[in-house]
Amino acid sequence: MELKERQKTSKLIFDGVILHLRLDTVTLPNGKEAEREWIRHMGAVAVVPLLPDGRVIVERQFRYPVQKVLWEIPAGKLDAPDEDPLSAAKRELKEETGFRAASWTPLGCIHPAPAYSSEKIHLFLAESLTQGDQDLDEDEFLEVQALPLRDLLRMIDEGEIPDLKTQTALLRTARLRPAFG
Amino acid sequence: MELKERQKTSKLIFDGVILHLRLDTVTLPNGKEAEREWIRHMGAVAVVPLLPDGRVIVERQFRYPVQKVLWEIPAGKLDAPDEDPLSAAKRELKEETGFRAASWTPLGCIHPAPAYSSEKIHLFLAESLTQGDQDLDEDEFLEVQALPLRDLLRMIDEGEIPDLKTQTALLRTARLRPAFG
Repeated sequence: MELKERQKTSKLIFDGVILHLRLDTVTLPNGKEAEREWIRHMGAVAVVPLLPDGRVIVERQFRYPVQKVLWEIPAGKLDAPDEDPLSAAKRELKEETGFRAASWTPLGCIHPAPAYSSEKIHLFLAESLTQGDQDLDEDEFLEVQALPLRDLLRMIDEGEIPDLKTQTALLRTARLRPAFG
Repeated sequence: MELKERQKTSKLIFDGVILHLRLDTVTLPNGKEAEREWIRHMGAVAVVPLLPDGRVIVERQFRYPVQKVLWEIPAGKLDAPDEDPLSAAKRELKEETGFRAASWTPLGCIHPAPAYSSEKIHLFLAESLTQGDQDLDEDEFLEVQALPLRDLLRMIDEGEIPDLKTQTALLRTARLRPAFG
């Protein structure tokens, strides 16, 4: 079956700092026309920093659109669409938590909301950690903690970790490092 | 540490069919002001339809913002913000795949992109399935297949399932039904 939609027109509705909203018309596989409202996003990275004792460095951060403080793994946007994702992951880990990692395992790329956002998150497992100083922006507010992976998996089961990238990243880590899961 | 940001002003930038983009000013915990670009979303449901032999009903669907055909579990938007999520899950499962389920297990709520979208997805495991007819909208194009959960988990490991809700939903199902994982 042909599934692809082809772009006919594209209009920039809002050109923000983070979000770039476009309204496109497309040709459907049946030849009819439809509209697509979508967000062009720079791309992002997210990191599972895993200590040798099975604890993971996690953050508590207020997320305005959902009006909640969420448990999340360290993450951040790319500085440019062509920024090397591993460099960005190293930067975000250091800035937000103070940690550097000697061992990096890519866990692939994920699309958090492919129905309306082009965002792609590059996911990494970071091990062999050494602690340093956080380097937060003065307008960035987050708390850092180290919690056992096993406890975090239980928190997922109990609905205490609604952030989707964090759920997937921790579940993937438990598959890769079953001794801690 | 105080983490919460308080709304000062809120402006509707784009009032679309799917996306409602707002630009707000907020007061940060340090008293300074910042801008927040964010999407108000109706909410959604997603369903893991699991057959007694360990196969899962999955779909292939073209997602315009990422320009890819993705493997996804059945999912859809709520018809209204106060629609009962379980009713919506039953409707979407029937429309997209033809299946009805006698057993429903809630897997909690997830936020796919809490940094810029209010979207909340209500996730369900659906079992005791009976097959009927699909009821797709004439402008909806998707292919339905039944694949073993074990194969889908391998596809996640190999980067073939970049849709984030699908990754989490399948990994959660493998924890709940380890015989199929």
